[in-house]
Amino acid sequence: MAEFSLSVKVYIEDTDAGGIVYHANYLKFMERSRTEFITRLGYDKPATLENGLLLVVHSMRIDFQRAAVLGDELSVSTEVRKIARSYVEFEQIVSRSGDSLCRADVKVACVNRDGMKPTAIPVGLREALQSDHRDR
Amino acid sequence: MAEFSLSVKVYIEDTDAGGIVYHANYLKFMERSRTEFITRLGYDKPATLENGLLLVVHSMRIDFQRAAVLGDELSVSTEVRKIARSYVEFEQIVSRSGDSLCRADVKVACVNRDGMKPTAIPVGLREALQSDHRDR
Amino acid sequence: MAEFSLSVKVYIEDTDAGGIVYHANYLKFMERSRTEFITRLGYDKPATLENGLLLVVHSMRIDFQRAAVLGDELSVSTEVRKIARSYVEFEQIVSRSGDSLCRADVKVACVNRDGMKPTAIPVGLREALQSDHRDR
Amino acid sequence: MAEFSLSVKVYIEDTDAGGIVYHANYLKFMERSRTEFITRLGYDKPATLENGLLLVVHSMRIDFQRAAVLGDELSVSTEVRKIARSYVEFEQIVSRSGDSLCRADVKVACVNRDGMKPTAIPVGLREALQSDHRDR
Repeated sequence: MAEFSLSVKVYIEDTDAGGIVYHANYLKFMERSRTEFITRLGYDKPATLENGLLLVVHSMRIDFQRAAVLGDELSVSTEVRKIARSYVEFEQIVSRSGDSLCRADVKVACVNRDGMKPTAIPVGLREALQSDHRDR
Repeated sequence: MAEFSLSVKVYIEDTDAGGIVYHANYLKFMERSRTEFITRLGYDKPATLENGLLLVVHSMRIDFQRAAVLGDELSVSTEVRKIARSYVEFEQIVSRSGDSLCRADVKVACVNRDGMKPTAIPVGLREALQSDHRDR
Repeated sequence: MAEFSLSVKVYIEDTDAGGIVYHANYLKFMERSRTEFITRLGYDKPATLENGLLLVVHSMRIDFQRAAVLGDELSVSTEVRKIARSYVEFEQIVSRSGDSLCRADVKVACVNRDGMKPTAIPVGLREALQSDHRDR
Repeated sequence: MAEFSLSVKVYIEDTDAGGIVYHANYLKFMERSRTEFITRLGYDKPATLENGLLLVVHSMRIDFQRAAVLGDELSVSTEVRKIARSYVEFEQIVSRSGDSLCRADVKVACVNRDGMKPTAIPVGLREALQSDHRDR
């Protein structure tokens, strides 16, 4: 099964006065890719799941390797690395013409909206993630 | 009564590859100033008022006159121009050392969160706005 | 000739605590559409043209009519309304399933990067804009 | 010597439809604090240093522990952890009323603007950072 990847174009809104993509914006690109990945698994609005659950970023390790610039056509990959009861770990890479520009390990937790406490990932989503994970 | 004004520092996040503040970010600066203005009137979280009401920007006319750049210390003023049953009109100016950089007429409407329909501004807020308006 | 239109998906980064798209973000969507429109005319990085020129938003009138929400697939149109020596006026509409959510008149000026002074639009871009304008 | 800390207010622009601060925005808050910290050391526009140098985020490890919400008054600390020839490591904590909400180890590299290659931190800045580091 092919790795999931989303194309992202760099617009002026994404850049800063250094002439490059503002570092925090790679996190936006990565969330767009995760969102499309999970949407493809049948979940429409991943960040606000049914039943008052939210998927929130718990932690991440990110390396900014090379700078993207205005007009770049980027590829933002998402791959499941680990699935636990209440969280998923992804590896994500932002690349340009095959060159990695930014790489991150992202841990996403499922929490309830009211108390923001860790909660089991809904069964359907969990199975979809596992299936995708096994297929690789 | 002195016009309300908020100080805003320009950070790298606010700029773009043109080396200037990205135009949409002046709208953020203006909303910060409106928020502090309304907070000063006794409303803590203006965008999400009590009773399921929201204050939303209905329309605006904005002139981008000169560019702000990284490190600038800006002054963002808010002045009530008109108060109606379900909306308020503000004039807002972003300036640097007394020079106007950006000027806008902003119409903010009060709507209910469920249907986003125009709703009367809560009496307390309305009176505070009118009082401030008359004092000038 | 068909009007130019760009598809834009609403991600969590675009929303705010009101549960809707943050108003300033419609300006980003509109600039993405203008960028793709001008790129289609043969200009790769519209915001930083050759010869030290920049295209900057001079002024706009914008109406926020209905709110877009997380997951929406929006259409953002760009149409040339007027071309002058150093500026262009666009009409832009953000719509969802044919319903207009946000509409703006946007005046974009060509300036030199050093002094930010109004400068004639490069002949090639001007002709392309006029051609597109006449074709409608 | 007291740890450097910047106050940051949460505005509607910082939140998302989950009702909390959008995760990537904590990186903006942290950069604001680093900027003010370095400005205090005598460097006006840290991200675009003299001599064509830039300070760029090289990598970071970040933990999102609890969510900040609209209207929160946050404290964003910056502390030097290590200084090397061409990079500095900071520990940064975003807290609310003494409770840590978000914590990061941030490695910031000095690069030349043209080739984005690692470059020695200017002597003056290096000495200021070391002095501040030793004082703690």
